Amino acid sequence: MALTKVGVLGATGSVGQRFTLLLDNHPEFELYALGASARSAGKAYKDAVTWKQTNLLPEFAKDIVVEECKPAGRFSECEIVFSGLDSDVAGDIETAFAAAGKIVVSNASNFRRSPDVPLIVPIVNPEHLEVVEKRVSDARAAGKERPGFIVCILNCSTAGLVAPLKPLVEKFGAIDALTATTLQAISGAGFSPGVSGIDILDNIVPFIGGEEDKMEWETRKILGSVSADKNGFDLIPEPDMKVSAQCNRVPVSDGHTECISFKFASRPPPSVDQVKDALRKYQCDAFKLGCHSAPKQTIHVLEENNRPQPRLDRDRDAGYGVSVGRVREDPVLDFKMVVLSHNTVIGAAGAGVLIAEILKAKKVL
Amino acid sequence: MALTKVGVLGATGSVGQRFTLLLDNHPEFELYALGASARSAGKAYKDAVTWKQTNLLPEFAKDIVVEECKPAGRFSECEIVFSGLDSDVAGDIETAFAAAGKIVVSNASNFRRSPDVPLIVPIVNPEHLEVVEKRVSDARAAGKERPGFIVCILNCSTAGLVAPLKPLVEKFGAIDALTATTLQAISGAGFSPGVSGIDILDNIVPFIGGEEDKMEWETRKILGSVSADKNGFDLIPEPDMKVSAQCNRVPVSDGHTECISFKFASRPPPSVDQVKDALRKYQCDAFKLGCHSAPKQTIHVLEENNRPQPRLDRDRDAGYGVSVGRVREDPVLDFKMVVLSHNTVIGAAGAGVLIAEILKAKKVL
Amino acid sequence: MALTKVGVLGATGSVGQRFTLLLDNHPEFELYALGASARSAGKAYKDAVTWKQTNLLPEFAKDIVVEECKPAGRFSECEIVFSGLDSDVAGDIETAFAAAGKIVVSNASNFRRSPDVPLIVPIVNPEHLEVVEKRVSDARAAGKERPGFIVCILNCSTAGLVAPLKPLVEKFGAIDALTATTLQAISGAGFSPGVSGIDILDNIVPFIGGEEDKMEWETRKILGSVSADKNGFDLIPEPDMKVSAQCNRVPVSDGHTECISFKFASRPPPSVDQVKDALRKYQCDAFKLGCHSAPKQTIHVLEENNRPQPRLDRDRDAGYGVSVGRVREDPVLDFKMVVLSHNTVIGAAGAGVLIAEILKAKKVL
Amino acid sequence: MALTKVGVLGATGSVGQRFTLLLDNHPEFELYALGASARSAGKAYKDAVTWKQTNLLPEFAKDIVVEECKPAGRFSECEIVFSGLDSDVAGDIETAFAAAGKIVVSNASNFRRSPDVPLIVPIVNPEHLEVVEKRVSDARAAGKERPGFIVCILNCSTAGLVAPLKPLVEKFGAIDALTATTLQAISGAGFSPGVSGIDILDNIVPFIGGEEDKMEWETRKILGSVSADKNGFDLIPEPDMKVSAQCNRVPVSDGHTECISFKFASRPPPSVDQVKDALRKYQCDAFKLGCHSAPKQTIHVLEENNRPQPRLDRDRDAGYGVSVGRVREDPVLDFKMVVLSHNTVIGAAGAGVLIAEILKAKKVL
Repeated sequence: MALTKVGVLGATGSVGQRFTLLLDNHPEFELYALGASARSAGKAYKDAVTWKQTNLLPEFAKDIVVEECKPAGRFSECEIVFSGLDSDVAGDIETAFAAAGKIVVSNASNFRRSPDVPLIVPIVNPEHLEVVEKRVSDARAAGKERPGFIVCILNCSTAGLVAPLKPLVEKFGAIDALTATTLQAISGAGFSPGVSGIDILDNIVPFIGGEEDKMEWETRKILGSVSADKNGFDLIPEPDMKVSAQCNRVPVSDGHTECISFKFASRPPPSVDQVKDALRKYQCDAFKLGCHSAPKQTIHVLEENNRPQPRLDRDRDAGYGVSVGRVREDPVLDFKMVVLSHNTVIGAAGAGVLIAEILKAKKVL
Repeated sequence: MALTKVGVLGATGSVGQRFTLLLDNHPEFELYALGASARSAGKAYKDAVTWKQTNLLPEFAKDIVVEECKPAGRFSECEIVFSGLDSDVAGDIETAFAAAGKIVVSNASNFRRSPDVPLIVPIVNPEHLEVVEKRVSDARAAGKERPGFIVCILNCSTAGLVAPLKPLVEKFGAIDALTATTLQAISGAGFSPGVSGIDILDNIVPFIGGEEDKMEWETRKILGSVSADKNGFDLIPEPDMKVSAQCNRVPVSDGHTECISFKFASRPPPSVDQVKDALRKYQCDAFKLGCHSAPKQTIHVLEENNRPQPRLDRDRDAGYGVSVGRVREDPVLDFKMVVLSHNTVIGAAGAGVLIAEILKAKKVL
Repeated sequence: MALTKVGVLGATGSVGQRFTLLLDNHPEFELYALGASARSAGKAYKDAVTWKQTNLLPEFAKDIVVEECKPAGRFSECEIVFSGLDSDVAGDIETAFAAAGKIVVSNASNFRRSPDVPLIVPIVNPEHLEVVEKRVSDARAAGKERPGFIVCILNCSTAGLVAPLKPLVEKFGAIDALTATTLQAISGAGFSPGVSGIDILDNIVPFIGGEEDKMEWETRKILGSVSADKNGFDLIPEPDMKVSAQCNRVPVSDGHTECISFKFASRPPPSVDQVKDALRKYQCDAFKLGCHSAPKQTIHVLEENNRPQPRLDRDRDAGYGVSVGRVREDPVLDFKMVVLSHNTVIGAAGAGVLIAEILKAKKVL
Repeated sequence: MALTKVGVLGATGSVGQRFTLLLDNHPEFELYALGASARSAGKAYKDAVTWKQTNLLPEFAKDIVVEECKPAGRFSECEIVFSGLDSDVAGDIETAFAAAGKIVVSNASNFRRSPDVPLIVPIVNPEHLEVVEKRVSDARAAGKERPGFIVCILNCSTAGLVAPLKPLVEKFGAIDALTATTLQAISGAGFSPGVSGIDILDNIVPFIGGEEDKMEWETRKILGSVSADKNGFDLIPEPDMKVSAQCNRVPVSDGHTECISFKFASRPPPSVDQVKDALRKYQCDAFKLGCHSAPKQTIHVLEENNRPQPRLDRDRDAGYGVSVGRVREDPVLDFKMVVLSHNTVIGAAGAGVLIAEILKAKKVL
């Protein structure tokens, strides 16, 4: 099968480097174009990038000549572009690529709240892609070319939160109240400058700008549904689901830990065993669709009382699986538990690649 | 004024070393006896101890000959003993010292739930000492000698939690519901073996044995009151105050961070400014009594949005002050905020010394 | 090809767990017996072990019933046993297994200095195995069964040191003087108790018991040769090669960094480029023999001025490759450079498995 | 006694903040002017600075209005200015202040290699100040005003190295060869951006730009002497003292650890005990002069085999004392030992304050 040509925008940054790694030897995608700022354009990727990943810079990418982030040159031949751009430049560039007919899968925050842009955790709500699927099928029915569009990757801390909630809502109905205290890894903050070492060594920073608000708002969109006309999304109204987040940065390299508690709307609530059972049995659509990167086990329910731990559990299913431990009754709400997710995989670049795989499996391309 | 002779039980351990440091040059107490296991007895303290504190082993203590933990020898002359014993031996030894007429201020957990033993955070509930004060005055009225007794130091994670709650309850009435997610430093776990480096480096351990249960129970005792007959304590019943704790060990040396949220029983709740104001104006009794170690400012309310942080704020008022930041409304309960306390000072040895200072100021000695 | 049955001694410990992981799905070996203390014997491995590895406990091993460490039961059927035993028990047990005809590949230090026991870094001095090969071929020539014997794995810090020295000595002749300052990861210290978190967080411990002496002595054995009669080893005499080590424990999970400098005996010394070239071209015998775990590139010479770094480079060639950076002239000796090796792979369990693969490739089995 | 008015240049940066802290309640100096970039000028210091120190921003400094770094305004009244400026702006500004008659004590690197600028570790080579003392006394003799001049604070890593060497050279003569491998704390790199957390967590960076060259060159200046005409300095020629440094950044907040070895020029070398004795007996001139910040014990010789450690020993003598441990013979050179110094005290701002105290004690002001 012919590989789909894809590109990476912001390829020299932290997220861009991870896209590049994840696309090395991908069975469906060929990383064909790398975009960065004018300062880097014209250089071989290996000379333009300060490579900071654990895995070596893949051979295939070393000599790709970096281009500016415009839907021209090698990018013209790409059907999908993955964006790891900073939000101060992502808006215009991503709009231009979508206007040029490209599918933009973006890790930037610019369009996450746009009413017609799907905000996706691929193991949670791929059904939200229906909004762009409809646009594509409408165009095709009208004999037009497939239009470009933007799909946003969900913020890393919310991704970990909603993963176990999805199967629970499916099984036991609406969530009435939800609290989450996060212990977030530093890799999510990028590295130029990211979190300063002296700020985080032997320390906790109990604040991440905008993060709590994102978690409280995004959860309403992700757990909400596609609107009846399939042109947008019906968010869960705030009074129906109260959400409270407290976000902390901790001295951990990768893997967000979240201590959450929640209360179902309907009474009586299920038992602890029923909750665990629903989590264990959940199989994400991406896996059912046979997507290459989809986790075999979406939610790992751990029984050891001191798990999950970031160093030991973050790499389950190559970072696409989410671990849940210490599921127990909560004296204030119904249940409390600990959730661990890999922030740069299911919470960033990895999610983008799996979203593209889903789009391909659904024949949107 | 003559100094009161005091001793330290478990002097070679982590807590015992901190008692020894805190008693160096104390204006009211003379550290006169050091007790440890039979293996250490007979040795000079400097030879018996593996000193692991940031401050050097005080000169005065170097050549004190360590004794076994029995109310004999130099301990006979001590009026107070501070216990840093492990709980597997603390029960019998502390009972023997109390029976011998000593005042035992203990960091061990053995008697924390005893109905007639005060469980004290000296900046929060010194009024609970009334139970032992009554026993002492009854004896004195009967022409008897002051009897020995045990006072327990509260567990470190609960100490941080109740410090800001006390002035709020005093001002705005009962707490209906309370949640706390802790990010606890490793120093609290001691060092033989304590938390293993490989377990905590680049990692979070979302479990501390027994800690959540302690926090949920102890809060009811601390915020409860002395019973009418002054022989014990009336705990706040569970239905009246729902408490839920989630405890994590984090790679921080000293200072417990706690993300808490709570709801008052009475409606409407106060405003954020009223809450902050009550916290700022709170002056602990120990300070009013003029105790040497009492914090000038009991609760520091920080306005910077990224504070308190353990490395920057744990040493306020020499570790006897508690820092509170990010006081804000909570979508699920009424308020949420971040509390930071120094676990080995106000949460352990330091609390013990301040309790003894209060007892002296109250003329219980 | 039939798999060779192997066993692991000390299977519940840190090193034993890594042996178990490395033997999961091994193409030549079947992990057939797991040995531990009497306390664990009789339990399924999954119940006897406190699993602390990043990878999950392999399915195949979960239900193997742990046995005592005696050459009986399932161990009778094993041709090779890997020992992760503590040195206080390793002596007698390993001797008993060797006496019973088993090949013992040991990570314990007990026999490292025995004159007839090969001390091996599989990517450096597999030719030292000739001493046991001779014993085996002599026995076979005499019509006897293959005798048992012990092979020792080199201490982790020395393994990193000698890996780049071997090709240099081969190419440019003897080393006259050698200094090494190590920055050693904590995983090498095991986890019961290993290095305490409070001892290593935000700290350096400039001492590891016995380590400097080991490095100074072992280097003479590894870089020395098999004696003429092939019954033992000719160590390089101390005056011919002066070695000085300074060992530090640092807050790094895996990967030993060593800053080394050295002077060749012959004048003039080679150039920096010649040194790098010799390192790059070195191909270890294990790779030439086609061993499964042998690194494709034995020594990675990095040109970036801030490499190697443990987090970024420790996993090259699955931890079997060694990274060298900053090769430059030294104002005091001839050259200085930075060496990084994975202490639990090429410096412990991984080395053991590769040694066994070499023995099999050499038909010693 | 009237306080000497002093100012701080670069007052909002990492080094500037520490100058501000150290000058709080200083018995001889009044911090009177705070200088920063035009962006900060005109603001109260408390509003201009992002305070990142463990100690709170001193009350006295909160409302000082920040000025631009020009020898005008409140700076006109200052006799001394402490410079924590970045090197990209320090050159012009410090030159302007010196030209305006100010004594500039600078932590910037710009003039460290200037032939007539003293480069000072106050506990090591205050006699190098003779070069500026001569300039001052010549001017005074000629009836002129005291001229302005610049004194440079030595780079932190070299400061730790030369502190113990000074008494040894005084006692046992010249050093023939010297090697130092550093394990440097991250605080020295400042915090905008300084060392990124993701670069240093669970990691070592074996490179600090320019640092090794600085150590090798500066050691020759510090251990050299004032030239005969007292107009400059005679550096120790490279062939007379070979120096080799290997510099690493480690995940430690404060305190540089250095593993050093050295060989004396004269034979036979002293014994280990003689070396320790010389270190212990060394009393720095600053202490003899009665300077406020001078350490009572300049070099602490520790006998425990696992010391010095940054977390436990960096604060000896408020960070002005240097700790030395593990003094022992070296198989390659004569001796090896571990040196620990507080990089932001004796290696930066603290050194600057003590230099100013020495100048005042010597009546240069």
